[in-house]
Amino acid sequence: MSEQAIKNDEKALTTRAADFNQWYQEIIVVADLAEHGPSKGSMIIKPYGYALWENIQRILDLKFKEVGVENAYFPLLIPESFLNREKEHVEGFAPELAVVTEAGGKKLDEPLVIRPTSETIMYDAYSRWIHSYRDLPLLINQWANVVRWELRPRLFLRSTEFLWQEGHTVHETAEEADVFARKMLEVYKKFLVEYLAITPVDGEKTATERFAGAAKTYTIEAMMQDGKALQAGTSHYLADHFAKVFGVKFLNRDNQEQYGEQTSWGVSTRLIGGLIMAHSDDKGLVLPPNIAPLKVVIIPIGKDEEKEVVLENAEKISAELIASGLTVKIDKTEGRPGQKFFLWEAKGVPVRLEIGPKDMANKSVVAVRRDTGEKTVLQQSKLVVALPKLLSEIQNNLLNVYNARLTENTVRVDSWEEFKTAIENNKFVMAHWDGTAETEATIKEQTNATIRCLPFNEAPEVGECVFSGKPSKSRVLFAKAY
Amino acid sequence: MSEQAIKNDEKALTTRAADFNQWYQEIIVVADLAEHGPSKGSMIIKPYGYALWENIQRILDLKFKEVGVENAYFPLLIPESFLNREKEHVEGFAPELAVVTEAGGKKLDEPLVIRPTSETIMYDAYSRWIHSYRDLPLLINQWANVVRWELRPRLFLRSTEFLWQEGHTVHETAEEADVFARKMLEVYKKFLVEYLAITPVDGEKTATERFAGAAKTYTIEAMMQDGKALQAGTSHYLADHFAKVFGVKFLNRDNQEQYGEQTSWGVSTRLIGGLIMAHSDDKGLVLPPNIAPLKVVIIPIGKDEEKEVVLENAEKISAELIASGLTVKIDKTEGRPGQKFFLWEAKGVPVRLEIGPKDMANKSVVAVRRDTGEKTVLQQSKLVVALPKLLSEIQNNLLNVYNARLTENTVRVDSWEEFKTAIENNKFVMAHWDGTAETEATIKEQTNATIRCLPFNEAPEVGECVFSGKPSKSRVLFAKAY
Repeated sequence: MSEQAIKNDEKALTTRAADFNQWYQEIIVVADLAEHGPSKGSMIIKPYGYALWENIQRILDLKFKEVGVENAYFPLLIPESFLNREKEHVEGFAPELAVVTEAGGKKLDEPLVIRPTSETIMYDAYSRWIHSYRDLPLLINQWANVVRWELRPRLFLRSTEFLWQEGHTVHETAEEADVFARKMLEVYKKFLVEYLAITPVDGEKTATERFAGAAKTYTIEAMMQDGKALQAGTSHYLADHFAKVFGVKFLNRDNQEQYGEQTSWGVSTRLIGGLIMAHSDDKGLVLPPNIAPLKVVIIPIGKDEEKEVVLENAEKISAELIASGLTVKIDKTEGRPGQKFFLWEAKGVPVRLEIGPKDMANKSVVAVRRDTGEKTVLQQSKLVVALPKLLSEIQNNLLNVYNARLTENTVRVDSWEEFKTAIENNKFVMAHWDGTAETEATIKEQTNATIRCLPFNEAPEVGECVFSGKPSKSRVLFAKAY
Repeated sequence: MSEQAIKNDEKALTTRAADFNQWYQEIIVVADLAEHGPSKGSMIIKPYGYALWENIQRILDLKFKEVGVENAYFPLLIPESFLNREKEHVEGFAPELAVVTEAGGKKLDEPLVIRPTSETIMYDAYSRWIHSYRDLPLLINQWANVVRWELRPRLFLRSTEFLWQEGHTVHETAEEADVFARKMLEVYKKFLVEYLAITPVDGEKTATERFAGAAKTYTIEAMMQDGKALQAGTSHYLADHFAKVFGVKFLNRDNQEQYGEQTSWGVSTRLIGGLIMAHSDDKGLVLPPNIAPLKVVIIPIGKDEEKEVVLENAEKISAELIASGLTVKIDKTEGRPGQKFFLWEAKGVPVRLEIGPKDMANKSVVAVRRDTGEKTVLQQSKLVVALPKLLSEIQNNLLNVYNARLTENTVRVDSWEEFKTAIENNKFVMAHWDGTAETEATIKEQTNATIRCLPFNEAPEVGECVFSGKPSKSRVLFAKAY
C-alpha cells in the first residue's frame, strides 16, 4: 500500500486480538517495510525497512569490532562437495538448498549451492590461513545474504533469501571457544535489551534443536505479543567437528599439531520481524527510539496564509534538532493533519510534534508519544533537552511493558494438564523434562511446543518430567515458536 | 602468503617493469587483500582487503544520502523471464548468467538467474510503487553482490561474483534524469580524486560501449601505472526504455500518464584493483591515507630490558593518536625490525613510526613515509598535529604523482602510424574518430584499443578520423583497457 493509498483509505488495521498473523502482515504494509518479491518466498526490503536493518548493522558491527572481530567476504557459491563433507551439516541443510547447475551458458561439472550458511567455505580457507597458535584467535565476521528454500515464507521471519551476519572464529582451546560463543550471545542479548527493548531468555538448546554440526547451540528467545517465542539469535560452540573435516589445525604452544576449536554465531533480518511483533499495536508499527530510523516527525498545521509561517517555524525547529543529533522529518505534503497523524503512527515514529499558529504564539509545540499516545506541551526553546529525555522515556517504557508481559506470560507448571493449557494459551512454560529426545518429540507432536532453551538463569531443582514423570534436574523453557 | 611466510621469505616482488600482471597478483598476496575461492573465478576478500571496501562503502554511502538517495534491498534471484523482457539487456548479459535450476530438492518450473545487475527486478517493483509525479524522483540504491560468469578471472578486476552498489532512480523528465546521471558520475569522480588520489577522465561512452539497455552511458576512466585504462565507475541515462518494458509510469503534472525517465549507476570492488594499479610500487601496496584502513603503524625497537619501556612509550603515543581520530596499530610481534618494515610496507600503511631507546631519550620518533620512503624526526609532543599534516602531504603527493603520470602519458596524435605506436606504448590517446561503429571495431581489432570515452572536457575541434580520414568534430579517448 503506498502512502497515497493509505491516505485515501484510512481503514483500521486488523487487530492483534482478532488475527495476529494478519495484523503482522498489515503492519509491514502500512509501515512500508517490505513486500514479497517475484520469485516464491523472496522479499524486497523497502527503504524504511532497510533503514532499520542499517541501524541494526551499524550498532552490531561496532560491538563486534570492539571485541576484536574483523569483517571479510566469502563467496556466495559453494561447491556441493564442500557441504557433503560434514554429514550432520549437509543433512540439516540439504532440503533447503538452491543449486546453480548452469553458468556462462554451460552446464557446470560440479553444481554450486548458494550458501545457506558459510561454515564449509570459510573453514576450507581457514585451513590455509592458520598455521600456529600465533595466528589465533581468528575472529572473522561477514555481512551477507544467504538462501534457504522455504515452503511457507513470511516476510522477515522466513524468506528464501535473507540478510544476516555470520561470525566464525577459531581458538586454541575448547574452553576459550565456548566462552567466546557465550560472549557473542551476550553481545546479542545486550543489543536486544538496549536497542530493541526486548529482554530475551538466554540459554542452551537441546541436542534436537542444535545447529547442524554444533556441539552446543546457545540462543536468545524473545516473547512476541501473542506469547509465542522467536529465536532472535544463536551462537554455536562447534568444538573441533568442522576443524577435523576441513583440516583447520595449528601447531600449539607445545609444538604439537592440534585442531582448532571453533564458534559461529548469527543474527538476521528476522530481528525486524521480532521487533514488529514485540512492540507494535493496532495502530501500526511501534519502534523503540534507539533503533528508529526517524525519531521525530513534525506536522505543521495551518491554513492558507498561516501555512508559510508555520512551516518556517517547523524548519527552524527541525534544523536545531538535527544539529543536536536527532533524525527529524517535516511532513510537508498536502493533506489533512489527521491523515498525517495516521500515516506516521503507522510507521512507528516515536515522537510527533504538532505545530499550529496557536502553538507558535505560545512558543510551544505539542509532542505526542507513539507508545502511549500521551500529549505534552513543550517549550520550543527547550526541545533540544526535552526530546532526548522524552525519547529515553519511551525507550524505557517499551522495555518495561515488554518485561511485564514476559513476566505475566511465563508460568511454572508441574502437571501435564496444566502444561497443555498453558501452551494452548501461548505461555512461556517452565517445566521439568526428563532430558530425552523422545519426550521432547512427543511433547512437540502433541502440543506444538518445543524446548526453546535450557535457560542460563534457571537454578537446578529436583523434579519430575511434566510428561513422563521421570526424574529431572532442572526446568526448561517450552513454548510455541515462530 | 601468511605474514609468517612473508617474514620467512623476504624475497623481492616481481617489479612492475618486469611483469605488471604478475606484480599485481603478488601485491594482492603480500598485502593480504584477497585470494581465489574454490569455485572457478570466485574471490575471497580477506579482512585487510575488506576493510578497504568498508571505507569505500562508508564514504560513498554518506555521499549518496547527501543527495537524497535511500538504500533498499532487492532479491538475489531473478526470474529468467524478467531478463528476457528487455531485448538488448538480455543479449548483453545472457553469456554471463549463473542459473538456479533446482531448489528445495526440486527442479524449478522457471529457472532463476542470479542477478548480474538489478534493473529488471527493481523496475518491476517500481511499476507498483510509482503512481504520481508526487512519488518522484525515486532515488534508491542497493549494496549487493552480483554474479557475472567470467572466463578469465582476475582478483578484484574480474571475478564471477563481486560486491558493488547499484543506484536506480526514476524522474519526471528526460532532462532531470540525464542531469542526475551526470551528477552521480561527478560524485564518483570527486570520490576518486579526494580519497583514492586518482583523477579519472570523465566522459560519455560510444554506442558500442554503452550499458545494455542504456540511452547514454557516462564513465570515469582511470589510468593505471602500465598506461592502461580502468573503467572505475559508470552512470547510465536509461531514458524510458526499461520503463516501457516494466510499466514504470505515472500521472504527470498535466494529469497525463507518462513513462518514468530512469538512471542507474554503480561502482564495485573493482575500485580496489584500480587503487592497487594506480599507486603501488615494487615494495608492495601503497594506499592513499584518506582510504587506508590503518594510517599509522608503530614499530617499537629495543632489546631485552629496553623492550618493555619502549613498548610502554609506544602505547602512550598510540593512545593519543587514536584519541585524535587516527587508526593506529603497534606491531608487538617478535621478529627483527627490518622484517616488520618489510611487512608493513607491503601492506601500504602510509606512515611508519619507529621508536627506539635513543628516540625515547630525545622524546622523538622517526616517521617514515610509505610513498617516498622519506624519514623525518618528529617530536612526540607534536605528533597529534604533525601526523595529520604528514598524511595530508602523502595524500597530495600521490594525487600529484598520478596527475603528472596522466599528463605525461596522454598524447594527441593525428596519424595512423603515430596512433599505433602510442597504443603499443600504452598511452591514453586523444584522436579524431569518424563516429562510426565500423571504424571503432576495426581499430579495436587491429590495435586492441577501445574508445574509453568522449571526454567532457574535450573542446570541439574539426579534424579527420585517425583511421578513415573521414571528418570528425572532436577527439575521443582511445586506450587499451582492463
